[in-house]
Amino acid sequence: MGKQREVKLGAMLLGVGRGTSTWRHPDAQPDASVNPGIYKSWVWKAEEGKLDFIFIADGLYIEEKSIPHLLNRFEPLTLLSALASASERIGLVGTLSTTYSEPFTAARQLASLDMLSGGRAGWNVVTSPLDSTSLNFGNRRQEHPEHNLRYEIAAEFLQVVRGLWDSWEDDAFVRDRSSGVFFDPSKMHTLNHQGRFFTVKGPLNVARSKQGHPVIFQAGSSDAGRNLAAQEAEAIFTGIEHETLEEAVAFYQDIKGRITAHGRNPDDVLVFPAIAPILGQTRDAAERIYEEVANLVTIDKALDYLGRLFEHHDFSSYALDEFFPELGELGRNGFQAMTDRIKREAREKGQTLREVAIQVATPRGAFVIGTPEDIADRIQERFEAGAADGFVLGPVTPRGLEDFVDCVVPILRRRGLFRSEYESDTLRGNLGLPIPANRHARMLVTPANIFSE
Amino acid sequence: MGKQREVKLGAMLLGVGRGTSTWRHPDAQPDASVNPGIYKSWVWKAEEGKLDFIFIADGLYIEEKSIPHLLNRFEPLTLLSALASASERIGLVGTLSTTYSEPFTAARQLASLDMLSGGRAGWNVVTSPLDSTSLNFGNRRQEHPEHNLRYEIAAEFLQVVRGLWDSWEDDAFVRDRSSGVFFDPSKMHTLNHQGRFFTVKGPLNVARSKQGHPVIFQAGSSDAGRNLAAQEAEAIFTGIEHETLEEAVAFYQDIKGRITAHGRNPDDVLVFPAIAPILGQTRDAAERIYEEVANLVTIDKALDYLGRLFEHHDFSSYALDEFFPELGELGRNGFQAMTDRIKREAREKGQTLREVAIQVATPRGAFVIGTPEDIADRIQERFEAGAADGFVLGPVTPRGLEDFVDCVVPILRRRGLFRSEYESDTLRGNLGLPIPANRHARMLVTPANIFSE
Ligand SMILES: Cc1cc2nc3c(=O)[nH]c(=O)nc-3n(C[C@H](O)[C@H](O)[C@H](O)COP(=O)(O)O)c2cc1C
Ligand SMILES: Cc1cc2nc3c(=O)[nH]c(=O)nc-3n(C[C@H](O)[C@H](O)[C@H](O)COP(=O)(O)O)c2cc1C
Repeated sequence: MGKQREVKLGAMLLGVGRGTSTWRHPDAQPDASVNPGIYKSWVWKAEEGKLDFIFIADGLYIEEKSIPHLLNRFEPLTLLSALASASERIGLVGTLSTTYSEPFTAARQLASLDMLSGGRAGWNVVTSPLDSTSLNFGNRRQEHPEHNLRYEIAAEFLQVVRGLWDSWEDDAFVRDRSSGVFFDPSKMHTLNHQGRFFTVKGPLNVARSKQGHPVIFQAGSSDAGRNLAAQEAEAIFTGIEHETLEEAVAFYQDIKGRITAHGRNPDDVLVFPAIAPILGQTRDAAERIYEEVANLVTIDKALDYLGRLFEHHDFSSYALDEFFPELGELGRNGFQAMTDRIKREAREKGQTLREVAIQVATPRGAFVIGTPEDIADRIQERFEAGAADGFVLGPVTPRGLEDFVDCVVPILRRRGLFRSEYESDTLRGNLGLPIPANRHARMLVTPANIFSE
Repeated sequence: MGKQREVKLGAMLLGVGRGTSTWRHPDAQPDASVNPGIYKSWVWKAEEGKLDFIFIADGLYIEEKSIPHLLNRFEPLTLLSALASASERIGLVGTLSTTYSEPFTAARQLASLDMLSGGRAGWNVVTSPLDSTSLNFGNRRQEHPEHNLRYEIAAEFLQVVRGLWDSWEDDAFVRDRSSGVFFDPSKMHTLNHQGRFFTVKGPLNVARSKQGHPVIFQAGSSDAGRNLAAQEAEAIFTGIEHETLEEAVAFYQDIKGRITAHGRNPDDVLVFPAIAPILGQTRDAAERIYEEVANLVTIDKALDYLGRLFEHHDFSSYALDEFFPELGELGRNGFQAMTDRIKREAREKGQTLREVAIQVATPRGAFVIGTPEDIADRIQERFEAGAADGFVLGPVTPRGLEDFVDCVVPILRRRGLFRSEYESDTLRGNLGLPIPANRHARMLVTPANIFSE
């Protein structure tokens, strides 16, 4: 009999915090987004809780109205490398855009992080939702590629990166001093990729780590995003679009169905909805904490934030207390799934602009507000109902991670839903994902396995 | 009276070591190029010696004949970020190519490393000497740009990066909880660069570190390389081309002259020749160590190594004991200064291919072979003769860094030539380089300085 299936848990580390105003919270450290000491203390806390991974999100374009955390923060791969030295077991997952990176450089920096951390790296593949990102990379592609094209680029990008990661078979480096043989040339492979978007020869100048490849996460939830995930990812982040259990189960089944349709084992791709708990010792206390957070947001900041989701649209010229304006296709070339939902709900519920803005800036429905038991119940319910393989924690208050580790994790553990010790020293090992075989490795047929067949 | 001028010292960390065969040395750890523990121990040693910085070189193309260290190694920015967490005072300098990177990404990762390390980052700007590098970046520029064009790209690249680094004035982040003001928009600056090679809007999403900008090193020593250095760099690496004191002084004066011609203060750009000591307790012992290292190299490996310097030319078809072949322009589009010198010397000295290959692979003339006193003498002589502001140590044997810190540094210290304690916690501070003013910062005119004028 196998062990009970357990929940996987990641924690998003978010500097000064989500939204426009969390940095104003009395417990917040307002320079947290560029403070290495704070990031280290968070990683220690997450590792103390035996969480599977920490996650660093990213974006490549800012302007005056961007939320505080985006304006001035560490770049994920450098930050995760620094955190690799300050941790031992926890996975290190970071975002990198396939629209604005070079596959050779991406493959290399991720492989280097994977080697530095002893096999703990993960890559959240994104295609960059904001049009304006192209303005910072103007020698490259003059125009931000349209939504589906971005995913076509991403698919080829991933094929190149994976190919480069298999440049060296695991036993290629012989390092035999006496004969002077450093490596076996028959185990070094030149990719020679010539595709629609990329031409990359290889080989990569870093070997595979203990876990074979960094774990590939994907965070797009549009149709094209889901297909990319089904085809190429090993874990999927999904956001606040799935508020009800039914929606979440439907998303999970949709993804697992697409994975099967691609001829892959659905157990080899984990679904991680985001969860943003607001914890109190009692439900009333939790409600008060929510109010405290919501009250930090002003309506101006809420409109700015909404505008950013809609391709930098300026909402300040509309009347606040009239119906949410008709926006046509606006928003569909960026955060498509999220903006579609905002428009639909505003229409269905007859919401005003003010209501939409406040709700998007402090989305009550996106939070789970309650006691540690309530949060554990929600996790258990969604996990057992087949809506999730794990969760990525998006802390809401500055002490959100600490509270979660101290108060919720022990409950999950008592219920037999979460580990007490790491099973492995690689991210892949802890997530229970298989090590990808090197595409060039020959199967060894030894006399022993001939006879055993 | 000022303090006596002191030598600055950096140490190149080189994994399994230089050349084709150092990895075979009995003291070598043959997986050193991908072993984080070894790099950490080296950084600790260098910091114990109060060296100014460690330096991680880089390259972007390998093939079967590349030397061992190049085949499988860490990427510099991820490695340096990991080392930032394992050190406190020492500078962290890494190579990044302006021919095959994005200025926005380069500016950001370097600034992030600078912030993570508390102002200890340095960037060795190179233009990538190997043609074949373009084969790994095939979506970008189909052809490897020709030598001078690469330097034109580099100059504009540096302007963009520096501009992005000034996106935020030092007091831009107000972070005032009660008023809700996170930053002062008048202190955020959008670059709007539109040049010949790059179009980059900005602003950068990382603020300046304590040292303002990472320190800019430059390693090209051709005419175009020297001009770029004079115009844009703050430190210059120079190689084994200057074997004699006269050559080294001439190079130093040439560089300082170009700096002055660009209207800059020659003291604000430091010249760092590479030095590769082979240390023994006696001169005989040092000679034996040299022989030991030289004997690790076979003639086949020496020819491969030579070929790589000459744009991957295959030297195995020439007769070994005849005159070094006539190669025309070959080599001038890559490691120009070095290949020009090899050709000239082969002609002048009437060397055979075998002699050239062996000499290039274990260049006796590039080493300083002797006792710790001999090495200290060489450093003092070149420093006092005006051939160097400091040196970048290129260890030859696996214990080269350790021996240098334990045996040579104390002698330099006794002679008053090197520090006993770090003066600063930034790289710039220790090198004695000024913090670059933010180009947008207004001079403060207070009543006090009005009256004092
Ligand atoms: C948990 C989670 C994390 C995400 N992290 C990032 C990120 O770091 N950077 C980014 O550009 N987008 C991020 N996204 C957004 C997605 O990449 C994607 O743009 C968005 O879900 C819209 O989906 P679509 O592109 O398929 O329309 C994240 C989404 C989720 C749910
Ligand atoms: C100490 C030192 C370090 C160097 N490091 C690198 C490096 O990391 N990567 C690289 O591509 N070139 C490196 N170079 C080579 C130079 O970038 C340059 O290609 C070479 O000196 C030839 O000069 P030129 O390009 O001006 O002809 C280094 C040179 C020296 C002297």
